[in-house]
Amino acid sequence: MSGKADTGPAWIGVDWGTTHLRAWAMDAAGRVLHDDASDRGMGTLSRDQYEETLLDLVGGWLGTGTVPVVVCGMAGSRQGWAEAAYAAVPCPPLGAPLTRVQTADRRIAVSIIPGLKQERPADVMRGEETQIAGFLHLNPRFDGVVCLPGTHTKWAHVSAGEVVSFQTAMTGDLFAALAHHSVLRHSLADEGWDGEAFATALAEAQSRPEALAARLFALRAEGLLHGLSPSAARARLSGLLIGAELAATKPYWLGREVALIGASTLCAHYETALRAQGLAPIRTNGDAMTRAGLLAARAQIKEPTP
Amino acid sequence: MSGKADTGPAWIGVDWGTTHLRAWAMDAAGRVLHDDASDRGMGTLSRDQYEETLLDLVGGWLGTGTVPVVVCGMAGSRQGWAEAAYAAVPCPPLGAPLTRVQTADRRIAVSIIPGLKQERPADVMRGEETQIAGFLHLNPRFDGVVCLPGTHTKWAHVSAGEVVSFQTAMTGDLFAALAHHSVLRHSLADEGWDGEAFATALAEAQSRPEALAARLFALRAEGLLHGLSPSAARARLSGLLIGAELAATKPYWLGREVALIGASTLCAHYETALRAQGLAPIRTNGDAMTRAGLLAARAQIKEPTP
Repeated sequence: MSGKADTGPAWIGVDWGTTHLRAWAMDAAGRVLHDDASDRGMGTLSRDQYEETLLDLVGGWLGTGTVPVVVCGMAGSRQGWAEAAYAAVPCPPLGAPLTRVQTADRRIAVSIIPGLKQERPADVMRGEETQIAGFLHLNPRFDGVVCLPGTHTKWAHVSAGEVVSFQTAMTGDLFAALAHHSVLRHSLADEGWDGEAFATALAEAQSRPEALAARLFALRAEGLLHGLSPSAARARLSGLLIGAELAATKPYWLGREVALIGASTLCAHYETALRAQGLAPIRTNGDAMTRAGLLAARAQIKEPTP
Repeated sequence: MSGKADTGPAWIGVDWGTTHLRAWAMDAAGRVLHDDASDRGMGTLSRDQYEETLLDLVGGWLGTGTVPVVVCGMAGSRQGWAEAAYAAVPCPPLGAPLTRVQTADRRIAVSIIPGLKQERPADVMRGEETQIAGFLHLNPRFDGVVCLPGTHTKWAHVSAGEVVSFQTAMTGDLFAALAHHSVLRHSLADEGWDGEAFATALAEAQSRPEALAARLFALRAEGLLHGLSPSAARARLSGLLIGAELAATKPYWLGREVALIGASTLCAHYETALRAQGLAPIRTNGDAMTRAGLLAARAQIKEPTP
């Protein structure tokens, strides 16, 4: 083995969600030495499988010493590896000490980043707080709203380095449930896009948000009667749901600076929607924010005892 | 065999939906002689299986003569037994001639009732037109709105014996998709009810319908943070979705006489919701309306040639 393998990386960052697991071997400055991913998310694991699953992915990066491993995401939930109790907003995104997890293998020293909770209206996040921490690390004076599009899109009001309040819209989850498990599955394409259909639906949903329940079945009927194409139907459903989300979250974004963090295609749809409202959102890369947030969390923990 | 079996019933009525098949052997006045049901709905069948499936259910009722069989529902769709082209509203609920289906077995003479379509806004129904016809047969002077709660709830404006316009809300489909195929599946009971949670959610959804997208994930967060019970979460989701439906269909029911047709538990929830808006809806039995509508359709077809 090389000298590097003997000492191992300075630390390892891990993003462990419901459906995915990603890991980066890092040097002390947060530069990526190696990275790998698997589909062994929290949803597929029982508590006693986490250590073995992590070692399957990162074991090859380890040397003879002990390497700190910083984990964000659903691995810290009650059904995960070990519960990292939520910090309550208002607080900084890394608002509570990390939770140490004991492992059988002494080559890793695992800490899990706590999620955030809001008592009223009740809301929770796990993973996004790390991306917000990364964004604030890179943009320390930001005052505005961070939007993290995804299965459960988060809107967080950020000011003076703290998450003041936040709001979840389960738009991605709702889209998938409708697209795959309702009558609309017969009418929607799995891929393809129609920007005009998206924009029209977006405008409709925002001008009359109370009519949403009456608009969904029309995607099916338009297909049967007027030949609405499956890709236009897909874009239209997305427009209706993102439009409904913007109507619901208007108190968050209206008149504020907005930063988007997430995957590029989805963020592009949100950017289109926000630009139609006269906003000029900042776009950032979700993975880069995760790594920056893991680095910020790394700075908060003590070196493990060798 | 008895004499009755030799001649068979005067006719047979069939309700053939996506997930169910029900049949009634009737005398000439529409009184039920026998009835049976199976789960062999359209969704489970290819075109060449319909005749055999029907005979499995009703074959024992047939005698030596030819019996008219009147079918309503999805069996008349493009993917069904034979397409019965939609009649376009405004028109009577039985707005077009029935579609005759050729069968190998000469003991049955099958006719399918066409559904209704509305060009703009695009909408379709199959099966509910028969229930509306049954309701109008029993209430010929009704002028108002017929609401048929179900997987795809229909709201039909009825006047002078015609369906003037109609509107579908896929509330039941949406509820099932969210309850079984989104993150809410962890938070909702399969059964149980909480009337107060239902009423509160109903009022919230109607007073701020634009906030719907922000309220769904709260069912999950309320469970995690404040112990919202799975049966209260179920009633709350139902209240949010029926409230959103009432907000979307307000132009239909506001200031009108409303008749509810459908299954009793679901109709009771819609009745609660409409009473909270100051309406006093009529409640009718869905199966009885189906049979009355099949009888009305039966009167429109000629006797088959023996």
